[in-house]
Order: sequence, then structure tokens, then C-alpha cells
Amino acid sequence: MRFGFLVFDDLEELDLLGPWELIGVWADQDGGPSERLLIGKHTRGIRCAKGLYLTPDIALDAVGRLDALLVPGGQGSRPAARDPQILEFVRAHAARAPVLSVCTGALILAAAGLLDGRRATTHFASLERLAGNDGIHVVEQRYVRDGDIWTSAGISAGMDMTLAYIAAMAGVDAAGRVQRWAEYYPDGVRHGDPAIHADMPAYVQQR
Amino acid sequence: MRFGFLVFDDLEELDLLGPWELIGVWADQDGGPSERLLIGKHTRGIRCAKGLYLTPDIALDAVGRLDALLVPGGQGSRPAARDPQILEFVRAHAARAPVLSVCTGALILAAAGLLDGRRATTHFASLERLAGNDGIHVVEQRYVRDGDIWTSAGISAGMDMTLAYIAAMAGVDAAGRVQRWAEYYPDGVRHGDPAIHADMPAYVQQR
Repeated sequence: MRFGFLVFDDLEELDLLGPWELIGVWADQDGGPSERLLIGKHTRGIRCAKGLYLTPDIALDAVGRLDALLVPGGQGSRPAARDPQILEFVRAHAARAPVLSVCTGALILAAAGLLDGRRATTHFASLERLAGNDGIHVVEQRYVRDGDIWTSAGISAGMDMTLAYIAAMAGVDAAGRVQRWAEYYPDGVRHGDPAIHADMPAYVQQR
Repeated sequence: MRFGFLVFDDLEELDLLGPWELIGVWADQDGGPSERLLIGKHTRGIRCAKGLYLTPDIALDAVGRLDALLVPGGQGSRPAARDPQILEFVRAHAARAPVLSVCTGALILAAAGLLDGRRATTHFASLERLAGNDGIHVVEQRYVRDGDIWTSAGISAGMDMTLAYIAAMAGVDAAGRVQRWAEYYPDGVRHGDPAIHADMPAYVQQR
């Protein structure tokens, strides 16, 4: 199994690297992906939104067939969503295998036409923007699967989506073993004045 | 405020990059750190445990004064804990400002003598190893602060520690605003057979 991660300048680090970690833990287990690749438009280095410098493993025109593709968000998702080569790559991949987006990576999927007629979500500050696309049913969930298209809420939500994806692909016990090794048992604390969290999406309010 | 992140070959990606993201979101707010640096023994690139290639911003002998230092874990923490230059760097820094470790980064702090007489924790699979050091009181918590030394449980636990650190340094509302932007509201699902999680540390069992 070859698992690809699209990278571009100004992507948000945790959008990419939360899932990267969990997929990497999965890869250390029986049945996990044999290959994980950072896929850039080119192979030159990219600078992420919070300053991290990353080096793609391969360019998108050289990568060949993938079994899954994850698309992160961040400020860089805006120019990426206007890049015909990136959109064509994502579209061609989606015809054959699952696509997962984190945060505003959903805007890239929307621009590629992958979310037409589907349920999808994104970072809370971009929900209205995503809903501005005709034919996308925007939901306020931590993540949502609609067929082979998975989208998650902002930044950290990609990790919850990734565990659910592993559960769907390899079974709940495989996901449980990844969760265990990554010690992904968050404390659930909400810091500060409750008013800070009062405008969060429905899934936050419902807990 | 200058916030440093120690990096070395075979560090575990999320140990480093979960906190990196949250400190980066904090940096976009009033009162957050003005500078965030990946600090290597040298400035040549490093290969992380799950395959990510990172480029340090600066070498440890050139970095000068920091206001905080985070030490990740991973398989690479074993050789790092035997490296006199790294230990001296961590020790010298700790004399002046807070040190935070994630996962088996605690083994580096222990080797530097920073945990003598203190409460500390680490990845669940290394709790016994950490307890093998005389004078360290190992606790099974998500994270623990003892004075200016913060240690967390495995991999993902560094994010909970980082929010608590921001709360302690800049107030609970600052931490809340970081949490909100990063949409750090994990769904709390435990995947798979409960037996998978049955040997986890006390803090997991108590929830």
C-alpha cells in the first residue's frame, strides 16, 4: 500500500504531520502501508505556515499509482486550489482510491470538483467559504466520510479522522493498536473562559 | 521570547511537531514567542523515526540564550542520551529557563541529571526504564510539571502538555485561544477491543 501526502508552501504543519505520525505507526504494524511519500509539485523544499522546512520525496508527475492521498490545509491551500496541475493530480487520483483532506485542504478538493453532491467539512473559520460552493453539503462534524472522500475539521482534527480511516480500512483493532502506541488519549481539557469556545462548530458544542 | 526545539536523527515526528504547531499558533497571537528554532547538534538534515526529513535552523553551539527548550523522544533519544555535547547543552539551558520533554525525551533529561529528585513521566513502554534511575519519582500522568521541568507521556501527550505550559506562562485564556484555532477538541474515541488499552498508564485507566 502506497500512502501519499500532498505538500505545498504554507501548508499547516499539524494538518500533515498528525496523520503522518499515525499512518507511520500503522506502517510499523502488520497490514500497514509499505510506502509513505511526501508529494510536491516539484521536489524542491517547501516552507510550511509555521516555518518548518520540508523536503518532498517525489514530484506529483512521477509518483504513479497511490492507494490513498491526504491533502492538508493552511494558508497555502488557497493558491494550491487555483493550481491546475495540483487539481488535475488530485482529481486523477480520486478516480482510483480514497482522498482525505484536513482543515482547508477541503477547499482544494472542492476546487477539483470532488465534493460535488457530497457531505464535507473544514476548519471552523472556513465553513462558510466551503458552503459557498454550490452542491456541497457542509456539516459541522469532527470529520465526515462520504464514499471514498474523507474531510476533517481544522488542524488537529486530521488525527481523529486518520484513526477512523485506519479502522475502516484495517479494522477497529488495528486503529486501537495505533492509538495505543501513539498514546493518543487526549485529556479533553478546555482551557480558559468558556466564551472562547462558544462559537465553535456543532460537534464541539454537543460534547 | 525564543523557543527552541532540540532535533536529532530518529526523533518521533509528533513528539516534536504537535508542540511545534501549538507554539506556532501561540506565536501568531499577542504575547507568543517571537522566535522558534529547530536546534540540531549540527545544521545538516536529520531523518525522523517515521521517515520525515527535517533541516535544523541552527546548531546548538550557536544558538545562544533560549527562553524555553523542548526535547522530543523516539528511538533517537537513546543515542542522544549518551551524547555529552547534547547533555551539556540541555543542562546549561535548564539552569536558566524551562525544559519540556515529550515521550522518551525524558530519558535525555534523566541522563543530563535534570530529573534527580523530581516527578517525571514518559512513553508508557519506557516507564520502567525511567524508573530505573535512582531519585526519579515516575508518575503515570498525561504530563507533569515539577518546577521548571515539564515531562509528558508518549507521542501525542506533548500537545496536552504544551497547552498547559502556555496556560501557565501566559494565562488560561491564551491557551484557550490556541486550542480554539488549532481546533484541538479530540473526539475521545477509544478504538477496538478495550483489552488493547488495558495495560495503559493510570491516567488512561482513570478516565
